[in-house]
Amino acid sequence: MFTPRAIGYIRSPYSEASKIPKGLGAKHDVEGELEILPEFEQGLLDIDGFSHLYVIWCFDRSDGFDLCGRPPCDDRAHGVFATRSPRRPNPIALTVVELLGRRGNRLRVRGVDMLDGTPILDIKPYLSSIPEDHLRRGWLAEVEARKADTK
Amino acid sequence: MFTPRAIGYIRSPYSEASKIPKGLGAKHDVEGELEILPEFEQGLLDIDGFSHLYVIWCFDRSDGFDLCGRPPCDDRAHGVFATRSPRRPNPIALTVVELLGRRGNRLRVRGVDMLDGTPILDIKPYLSSIPEDHLRRGWLAEVEARKADTK
Repeated sequence: MFTPRAIGYIRSPYSEASKIPKGLGAKHDVEGELEILPEFEQGLLDIDGFSHLYVIWCFDRSDGFDLCGRPPCDDRAHGVFATRSPRRPNPIALTVVELLGRRGNRLRVRGVDMLDGTPILDIKPYLSSIPEDHLRRGWLAEVEARKADTK
Repeated sequence: MFTPRAIGYIRSPYSEASKIPKGLGAKHDVEGELEILPEFEQGLLDIDGFSHLYVIWCFDRSDGFDLCGRPPCDDRAHGVFATRSPRRPNPIALTVVELLGRRGNRLRVRGVDMLDGTPILDIKPYLSSIPEDHLRRGWLAEVEARKADTK
């Protein structure tokens, strides 16, 4: 199909996966940088005008995949395409970050949930949202309801 | 990094790129199917509970990339990472679709903007939105404002 290449790397305070907040109510407001390789810097022209970006990156420290697995927040298994598990047929990840500023080939962002040094595959502008009241969140909403019941 | 593989293919009414609505105000409410390969079907377990999905797919009919280019809705060039151009360093695309129903390995969805037969790389649940009033949309908002002025 194509040969993935890094367009840059994530600079993050996380050096171990165990330190990254996971599961229900995990807050991702940590700041970091998207350091784009100099040969791709021209592709950032006008990116500064967007408040939020999609970052598509590679789970480069994940190996293999499970079609079903138990996420950290639940004791039941779900299909991999209904979770954000790193063990996927294509180890591609997606994070929405807030763009705080740009300095040359470096984008300062909030909302980092990647390990330091993670390869970035693509960046796209975040253009519109599905209104929250149109969203159904399946098993995740059920887990939240179960946990709220047992509080 | 990894070798991308198709987890399935898009069934869409679009057989030519020129028929897909593009640019400002383009509506993507066309229905289609995500046909997942039988060997990955188990990964769809519990996906039915989500109203919206991220579909990560491959611009398989795009070749090469431009770091700067003029999108269909503007006469000015922008960096590729500030646009949704198919001519990207990694030809990876992202579409949010509404899940209408599942029948075995086939997901009926609304919001298809892909060509028929396009390879799917990944599906993820859409969990939350950035509120519209927190979004800035850079050059795209400027184009909209310019077009509104000249009406």
